[in-house]
Amino acid sequence: MTTEMLNEQTISTFLDALASSAPTPGGGSVAGFSGAMAAGLVSMVCSLTIGKKQFADIEEEVRSIHAQAEELRHQLQALAQADIEVFGRLSAAYKLPRTTDADAATRKAAIQQVTRSAAEVPLRIAQVAAAVVPLCTSLSNRCSRIIVSDVGVAALLARATVQSAILNVEINLAGLEDTIFVRETRAQLEDLSVGLGEEVEGIMSIVRQRINQ
Amino acid sequence: MTTEMLNEQTISTFLDALASSAPTPGGGSVAGFSGAMAAGLVSMVCSLTIGKKQFADIEEEVRSIHAQAEELRHQLQALAQADIEVFGRLSAAYKLPRTTDADAATRKAAIQQVTRSAAEVPLRIAQVAAAVVPLCTSLSNRCSRIIVSDVGVAALLARATVQSAILNVEINLAGLEDTIFVRETRAQLEDLSVGLGEEVEGIMSIVRQRINQ
Repeated sequence: MTTEMLNEQTISTFLDALASSAPTPGGGSVAGFSGAMAAGLVSMVCSLTIGKKQFADIEEEVRSIHAQAEELRHQLQALAQADIEVFGRLSAAYKLPRTTDADAATRKAAIQQVTRSAAEVPLRIAQVAAAVVPLCTSLSNRCSRIIVSDVGVAALLARATVQSAILNVEINLAGLEDTIFVRETRAQLEDLSVGLGEEVEGIMSIVRQRINQ
Repeated sequence: MTTEMLNEQTISTFLDALASSAPTPGGGSVAGFSGAMAAGLVSMVCSLTIGKKQFADIEEEVRSIHAQAEELRHQLQALAQADIEVFGRLSAAYKLPRTTDADAATRKAAIQQVTRSAAEVPLRIAQVAAAVVPLCTSLSNRCSRIIVSDVGVAALLARATVQSAILNVEINLAGLEDTIFVRETRAQLEDLSVGLGEEVEGIMSIVRQRINQ
């Protein structure tokens, strides 16, 4: 399956496949797309701000936010696909023979190696989605009031994506024997969580204030 | 635009349109699809539980959860489309003539009427997405440990959807003069928020405990 394939499915087809007992797509791809929607909303708010007279003095900054959001969105769309690919490799590893001791050892090593990749993809999703939040902070006071709710939605979805991706990392870490990798990855997850809730609450506070102005 | 149209777009096309300065899709459709992904994950967990020997004694209950989740998912997919349609009607109302006093009064009444619909669609999205959360509670202890992270992702996304849809309701309420409708709708929003955070935290606590078992 190429990167194009998942992203070129219709929304209906994707959601029907998600709801089914098919092994993919699953929670990893969902996190990728919810993050991509968050980044897409940031891009939309930028697109609706660029070229407007009243925001001419911040246009350069908004153009930079737009470029960053589009980069993050495309990374998240690719990671939604990467999650499916690594799941396919994991299923293949579990199907390796284990009749002899040598086979069993090879199979176990393969599972450990691919499970590590299966943790790295959602870790990357969490990191990329977390990078959407500061863009929301920058925009919350730098866009038309009528689209400030979209900045809030972007921040809420980015946070849910980070939290969701963290669960997907943790379920894979639980099966890993490489204690150094597990410890280092847990430290990275903690770094991602620190300050995230507070930053999103700060955005929500500005958004609510501007909505009710 | 029919209900089919948005749902039959490819994910790429939808995300590209979202990121653009096109008036739709926006935060309302994003909330509809994030809610649909949450419901779809619940259905997936049910699909992977039904027919398994170890869960035979709860199969009837899981089948009922599956039917409810699929109903909620299809409602959320239709609401993502409904949000686009109501936005189209709102744009049309703003374009009505206002050269004479009579025209201006007609235009104002039309805007007020459609803005009310523009608040009702995300209110419905919030209500339907909130109904996904109790299904996650039921499943959190009634599925295989290896898919419990998907239950957590569903709960996190359902909560983000409710919170996002509430912002979309509020931005529309801010422009409404019908104080009774505004007050009643605000009361419904409060009902939706009460207990939501606690219930999702309860699910997360079970999910994390089972992941680290």
